[in-house]
Parts: sequence; C-alpha cells; structure tokens
Amino acid sequence: MNDHPNLPPRFEPPRRALLGPGPSDVAPSVLTAMASPTIGHLDPAFLRLMDETRQMLRAVFGTDNAMTLPISGTGSAGMETCLVDLIEPGDRVLVGAHGVFGGRMAEVARRAGARVEAAESPWGEELDVDLVRRMAKAQPPKVIALVHAETSTGVLTPLGPFRAIADEVGALLVVDMVTSLGGLAVELDRNGVDAAYSGTQKCLSCPPGLAPISLSPRAVAALDARKTPVGSWYLDLSLIRGYWGSERAYHHTAPINMLYALHEALRLVLTEGITAREARHRALAEALWAGLEALGLELLVAPAARLPPLTTVKVPDGVDEAQVRRALLSDFGVEIGGGLGPLKGRVWRIGLMGHAARWENVALCLSALSSALRRQGHATPSDAIDAARQAQQMT
Amino acid sequence: MNDHPNLPPRFEPPRRALLGPGPSDVAPSVLTAMASPTIGHLDPAFLRLMDETRQMLRAVFGTDNAMTLPISGTGSAGMETCLVDLIEPGDRVLVGAHGVFGGRMAEVARRAGARVEAAESPWGEELDVDLVRRMAKAQPPKVIALVHAETSTGVLTPLGPFRAIADEVGALLVVDMVTSLGGLAVELDRNGVDAAYSGTQKCLSCPPGLAPISLSPRAVAALDARKTPVGSWYLDLSLIRGYWGSERAYHHTAPINMLYALHEALRLVLTEGITAREARHRALAEALWAGLEALGLELLVAPAARLPPLTTVKVPDGVDEAQVRRALLSDFGVEIGGGLGPLKGRVWRIGLMGHAARWENVALCLSALSSALRRQGHATPSDAIDAARQAQQMT
Repeated sequence: MNDHPNLPPRFEPPRRALLGPGPSDVAPSVLTAMASPTIGHLDPAFLRLMDETRQMLRAVFGTDNAMTLPISGTGSAGMETCLVDLIEPGDRVLVGAHGVFGGRMAEVARRAGARVEAAESPWGEELDVDLVRRMAKAQPPKVIALVHAETSTGVLTPLGPFRAIADEVGALLVVDMVTSLGGLAVELDRNGVDAAYSGTQKCLSCPPGLAPISLSPRAVAALDARKTPVGSWYLDLSLIRGYWGSERAYHHTAPINMLYALHEALRLVLTEGITAREARHRALAEALWAGLEALGLELLVAPAARLPPLTTVKVPDGVDEAQVRRALLSDFGVEIGGGLGPLKGRVWRIGLMGHAARWENVALCLSALSSALRRQGHATPSDAIDAARQAQQMT
Repeated sequence: MNDHPNLPPRFEPPRRALLGPGPSDVAPSVLTAMASPTIGHLDPAFLRLMDETRQMLRAVFGTDNAMTLPISGTGSAGMETCLVDLIEPGDRVLVGAHGVFGGRMAEVARRAGARVEAAESPWGEELDVDLVRRMAKAQPPKVIALVHAETSTGVLTPLGPFRAIADEVGALLVVDMVTSLGGLAVELDRNGVDAAYSGTQKCLSCPPGLAPISLSPRAVAALDARKTPVGSWYLDLSLIRGYWGSERAYHHTAPINMLYALHEALRLVLTEGITAREARHRALAEALWAGLEALGLELLVAPAARLPPLTTVKVPDGVDEAQVRRALLSDFGVEIGGGLGPLKGRVWRIGLMGHAARWENVALCLSALSSALRRQGHATPSDAIDAARQAQQMT
C-alpha cells in the first residue's frame, strides 16, 4: 500500500469553450477566489462571507425572503431540498412535465411519499396552462411544481399564469430556476414564487457544487407546520437554517471554497446588474438564433417560448450528431450538448450562459458548426456570422 | 435591481493555521488544481480524471470495491448515502453511539424508516463491545453502524470486534471514517467493512464539499435487492453508479473543480504513502500530547483509545475556554475547536490532520495555548515544546 505504482500525473484540463447546457465558462476572478486558502466554517471572517452571500443571493433572486441560502450540493440537491422539505407523505403534488427536469421533480416528489400527478406537454413546447388548471381544480394539490427554464428543451415558461392557478387552489408554487438564475430577472417576489432552486454552474458562471434556494414566508410556514420530520437529514432546512441564521449551530461543514467562488460570482452578476445581464443574454441569443438559421438549421422551440441562455437546434437529416460534437470538441475545443430523452440524437443544445455569453463565442460556435457540417457533406451558407452580427445589433 | 448599493468587496480570507476538527489546511497544489478552468462533466478528459480518482480512492481506502466514488456533498451526505441506500423502512439498525456522529447516524437511519437501537457508551470512551454484542444478538440488525474516528470526542474505535459481531448475526458493517481516511490505514477489505464514508476536509486536506464512499460487493447486493426505491434521488447509488460507471449516464452535474482538488489531494496522499502518513500523524500526535501534558493540561481520552488526528483536551477549572479560542484566532491565527454536546465548554479539540500535521503547528499550538492560558492567570511550565520534541523523537 505504501507505493502506488500507477500514480497518475497532475491533471491539466484541456482548453474549452463551454457552450453546452452547463457547466459554463467560469470567470477568472471566480477561479482565483476559489483558490484562496480554506478557513474554518465558524471563522468570523467566513460568517461575514455567508451573510454577504445571502444578501447578494436575495438581490439576484429578486426577493426579500429570509430563507435564501446555498445548499451544499449541485442543482439537483436544491430540487430535492425544496420538494422533500415541503412535502409530507400523502401530500398531493402537481408537476408540469415537458422535459427531463419536470420528470425529475415528479420522481423526487414520489420518493418523498407524495401522490404525484404530472401535467404533460410535448417536449419543446410550453407547459399547457389550461391542462394544469383543470388538473389543479380536479384535485387541489399542496404544491404545484414546474420548470422555469427547461435545460433539456430550451423552453422558457412564464410564471404568471401558474401563480394564478396556485392562488385559485391554495397551492405552493415551486420553480426550477437552474438555467434562468443570473441570466434572466427571475423576480421571485413579483412572480409569487414560494420555493425556487438553482445551480451555480449555469448563468451564475461558478463551478458546479452549490444550489442556491429561496423559500417564501408561506413556504417556511409549511415547513414549520410539518407533522413528520423531513426524510433527509442532510437537506432539512429546519436544521440548516440554524447554521445560516444567527445561532450558527453546526449542522455540516460548509463547502468553504465553493462559497468563496459563489460570493465572487454573485459580485460579478450584481456589478453588471440583472437588467443589463438579461439584455446581454437576449442579444447574444438572438444573434445565435439568426446565425443558426443562416446556416440552414432549424430551431426546436417557437420564438416566443425560447430560453435565451439555452438553444435547441434540430440535427439535419443525414448528419451524425455525435460526430459533429466530437469534431467541435477536438478541433475547436467547443463543447455543446446532445439531446436527452425523446430528443436524444435529434437536437443539439447550445448554451450562452453567464461569462460564456459573449460575441466571440457566438462567432466561434457558428464557424465551428459550419465546418463540422460541411465535412459531413452538409452545405452551409457562408454568411452566418454576418447574420448573427446583424441580429445582435438590432436588439 | 440594476445597481446594488452595498456590494461587498472581494473576499480576502485571513491567514489561519487550521488546527481544529476540520477543515484542515489545504496543500498549495490542491488549491492550484481547484482553480484550473472548469470543463464539462462528460468531457473525455474529465472522464479520465474520474477513473483515476476512483482508482486512487480505492488505494487510500485499502479496498478493491468497485463501488468506490465521491458523493457530491460533504461528509454528512456520505453518511446519509450509506444509510439510506442500505436501509429500507422497517429494517433494524444498531448504532454505536458515543459522540455526535454516532447520534447523527441514528437520526439519519430513523428518518430512513429504520427501527433504530443505539448502543451507548460514555463520550470519550471506547464503544462497549459486549453491549453491542448483547444488543445485536437480542435483535439481529440488518446494519451495525459505528464511527471509526469520533471527531467529537477524539476516540478511535478498533473495527475487528465489531466485524466479528456483524458476522455472528449476519449484519452489514457501516463505518464513519470522516476523520480517519487519509490519516490512518483504514484497510476496508482487511477489516471487512461493508460501507464506509468520509469527507475531504480532514486528513485528505482538500476543501470540504465531497464525501468519498466505498461499498463492498455484499453491500451492493443489498442495494440491488431493495424492494423499495431509495428515499433520496440525489443520493441513490443505483443511479449515481450509472454516471461513474462505463455508461456515463447523466445523473447530476458533477462538482468539477472540487474533483480536480480531490484528484490532486489523493495524489499527495499516495505519493507520501499510507504507512508513512499514518506514522507522521501518530508521531506528531504523540508530540502534541506530551506538550499538552507538559503545559499541565489533561487529555480526555485514555492513551490506548486516542485518535491521532484529533485530540481532546480538558479545559482547566477557572479558564474561559471560548476566550482562549478567540485569543488563539485573533493573536496567532490558530483555529482550534470547542466541545460539542455534553463536552461543550469542557474540552478543546485540536486537529493535526493531513497537510496541517507538521511540527511547526505543534510548536505554534503549544506556544499559543500557553500564552492564552497565562493571560487568564493559569500558570504553565515553559518546557512544553521541549517535551513535545522529545516525544516526537521517541516515536
């Protein structure tokens, strides 16, 4: 055991432009912050960082919610936290399912003992408001759960109609904001969201590993009114708030350096400003969409429902989509994503998120895609970058 | 929302020597590795890093277990994973409880629906083998769970007697190795451990945020034989193994940069060698113990049961223990821990873990403690560092 014969060398990651569904490129100052020496989770300096982080998270979420903090896990841990903390065995949950992440919410809720109904809409289309209303009225749920920004399809769902339904039936509204937080103005309080979760590795442009969440006073009241303990000790907010609150009661050791990174990433978001950041994501998405169409490609989602940070493009007939992705990665260092579930093999997923949402990446992606498609014998017009630039200038 | 009036400055952590119960000081090359640019969780280069990490984890755990991987959460998430994946509602679990972490295991198992019995021994003493045997024979459990290295008390529990009991009643042996992995030769296979978990922030000297775990083939068979799904989707190893195995099926986005850090931390452990590392931890612990006794302080744990990486010292009568810790932090940048539960206010906890287990830290800790005690009017002999050096040289 003393010597390890095949010790690998120090890892040197290849150079990449992360233009897939996440993680996205991380800003240099965030990487630098993360490499600061670790300090203790009860160090007075660290407690100050925690308070500042919560305050900045509230600004980015657009909320005054006291219960706003990062969970010590990835976005999926945030999903599980919001659901298992609000659901008791036997509770009814209505989930809007038109992609991977709605389906995942349903599965997590089922494991928490909920009676789950799924309102299903086709992948790539908006969630059907009328269907959700009919189902909610037929059997009023405790929780209506839906995905604001479906990373598997590129669909953005407006929240207003679902808040109205939740009000009509007295339900809590739980929303997945993994791919919207930091790229769009999510405005929890204005939208009446009761519980939201996100991940750090999308539009916040921080490495993956933390899940910012926020619960409204109404959601906290539901947590406090539970008759049974939360099934998960690790994700039990009634314990976690003891550490993030003034008591500073030890629960688990916080992921110190990841929190350094989040603190710096939130500073960058707020320095730019949410409104400017949303405008940047939209302008570059419009540029990408125009460029992709100029390449002769078709987008999966209708214009009104498109999610700026994540674009789904249909794979043309006769093109080997995995081969295109491999060529992008090996020849250009560009990562884009493939499709999931029923969209596997049928779409590419192109992200322009946070630090990666910049003009050079639009141009790089379009020229790399054009090159890879041509090598598969798929003719592409040559003016895609011009079309993209024009679209960007028009926004 | 556009401007944030009170944006905090970039965070600059103070300089610390982390000599508490964890996190411990992180080696510079681990911090550097963590600051490498983020790449995708399905990037071929990252998949190679995952394979190398698992191989190194097996070496550090002393096992050939195929199911050896880091969970995307802190050590407590590792505890929850091992318990909720092996326990189904109604299963009997016998927990050895003589500190915070045994108590936590019992609580996690109860929330997973287990019928839990706790074999309690006094805090600071070894777990009572005869008691565990009597309880196991009276009502044979599916799982016997105990803590190898109790971070709350500084007690090291030998595993052999409990493996024998588990064999007698046909139980799985689940062991908390949060404060032993990387500092002691834990030897899972030789000790017959069925499931073990740890954290990255103790003797591995990596920032907190990942929980290495390992399951024996017998434990994996128990997972595969479940009649009910694991209550937690996020911690369900039957799904997680799809990503860490050859299928590379997406489950959740791996915490990329934390895994860079773990990869480098494991390289450092194996470069030094487990045997040498254990000897270093023991020699420095012996030095610290001699030095503390030369200061006139009394150790909580009897010599045979002491855990080298974590020492508990009794607070002398008339000393304000919190004031001593504050003085160490503000005057010397030295972090040590206070007591938890029934030991709150009664002990200090001093860690010499991983990168922090070095002679300079023993000397620093002894002189800082001596200074802080003298300022509270507690006379201390002046030769503590000499006593420590002699003890180190004798090991």
